[in-house]
Amino acid sequence: MAPDPSRLAINQATVRPQWTLAQAIEGFARQNVRGIAVWRDKLAECGVEEAATMLRDHGMTVTGLCRGGMFPAADAAGLQAALDNNKRAIEEAHAIDARCLVLVAGGLPEGSKDISGARRMVADGLAEILPFARSAGVPLAIEPLHPMYAADRCCVNTIGQANDLCDALGAGVGIAVDVYHLWWDPALEAGIRRAGKERILAFHICDWLVPTTDLLLDRGMMGDGIIDIPRIRGWVEATGYDGFHEVEIFSKDNWWQRDADEVVTVCRERHGTVC
Amino acid sequence: MAPDPSRLAINQATVRPQWTLAQAIEGFARQNVRGIAVWRDKLAECGVEEAATMLRDHGMTVTGLCRGGMFPAADAAGLQAALDNNKRAIEEAHAIDARCLVLVAGGLPEGSKDISGARRMVADGLAEILPFARSAGVPLAIEPLHPMYAADRCCVNTIGQANDLCDALGAGVGIAVDVYHLWWDPALEAGIRRAGKERILAFHICDWLVPTTDLLLDRGMMGDGIIDIPRIRGWVEATGYDGFHEVEIFSKDNWWQRDADEVVTVCRERHGTVC
Repeated sequence: MAPDPSRLAINQATVRPQWTLAQAIEGFARQNVRGIAVWRDKLAECGVEEAATMLRDHGMTVTGLCRGGMFPAADAAGLQAALDNNKRAIEEAHAIDARCLVLVAGGLPEGSKDISGARRMVADGLAEILPFARSAGVPLAIEPLHPMYAADRCCVNTIGQANDLCDALGAGVGIAVDVYHLWWDPALEAGIRRAGKERILAFHICDWLVPTTDLLLDRGMMGDGIIDIPRIRGWVEATGYDGFHEVEIFSKDNWWQRDADEVVTVCRERHGTVC
Repeated sequence: MAPDPSRLAINQATVRPQWTLAQAIEGFARQNVRGIAVWRDKLAECGVEEAATMLRDHGMTVTGLCRGGMFPAADAAGLQAALDNNKRAIEEAHAIDARCLVLVAGGLPEGSKDISGARRMVADGLAEILPFARSAGVPLAIEPLHPMYAADRCCVNTIGQANDLCDALGAGVGIAVDVYHLWWDPALEAGIRRAGKERILAFHICDWLVPTTDLLLDRGMMGDGIIDIPRIRGWVEATGYDGFHEVEIFSKDNWWQRDADEVVTVCRERHGTVC
């Protein structure tokens, strides 16, 4: 069954080079897309107050603020900077009424080969910021990233790991389920079931292209790749998840080169036909 | 503890553009590297009989023949072709006394988005060729590949999946453990323990570079990346594994551009210092 069009959200990174935050809010709203994920650099550029007002005036739901995390650090000063940065991100997420702060855990600290150690730093960092997030009423969404980012970006690479972290941390922490990162995992269906409605704070869509020519910036538009999005959406919605389907595409040679209004139009079409 | 230098093997793909099989045998032996993994196209070019003689004359152990597998097919004719091809590979592995036939499972059939279905095809294909492999006395080594290859190359992406396949298939099937594909997996240590000495048919080494600029052809020399190779080797050898440490590097812009003798020399040095 085709998804409800009102469930479509777009992560502003999908039109990162084309639009400022103000332009994205207006551009999405113009095509009746009422969910947006916001990036912190774009938010800073716009100003938090101004953005909050614009978002409200355009009836936008902020599906997530991107992003916190990046906990593993080479020393105590690096760790403290990461924690402080996460606290600022929580404040910003609160200010724009984001449904969650998206956390990308971070990879190996400079010079380290200790992936287990990095994972412990992530668990510790999450535990540090969690009380602050709870006070602010901002859910933390751990986003497991594809294993190809384990070294330099995110050492949480499966929904199983994210669920384990949620078990250990308790209320206030959940998961952002992104089909790009997780589609390959044989344990995905079980992991989504285990997460359940409570923990699934966001559902991100795009597609895996064959071939993929860049590890970071060659994500595909839904329908242009090989991910069975309806199947994964079915698993997610079987938990009772009734939130947005957020398109997040980093595509330096294709979608970032196009007219942004066209990108939004194609997102809407594909959401209705292949998601 | 530094590894025994006599345990070093080199996969001939590490010097693919530089050397024919005959040159690789001579080149490796010249530097006293007595283990080699052979590729089928290079073997065909050399001639199986000629290669078998040369390998024997140079005292080389063939750590594996690359490769069989590629089971998922869009139709019955495609499946039959894959099975026939695997049977020929088994005959070749037997002819050169390879310790195993390395199997890369295959990805999604053309036009398919059904990763579970592809995985079933792999299990079925393995079951089909297994009696033939047993008769020939050729162990089949399932090589789990990194999840970034799940779509187009190999839908077996963790050692857990490989162990499950081994459980289902019984004797004659094992696993090729490659640090490049598996280093990120939080369940790797447990998976290696579960596999045990019996199942670990090969141990492949290289390194994960940061950044990695190509999904396929940017593997690093041991020591140039972030994989804790001694730690993983420790897990492997704790099972009782006493086979070779096989260097397998696909590196179009670096190692494939260098003098092959130099590549072998660097493999030997790094094997002694960072593996």
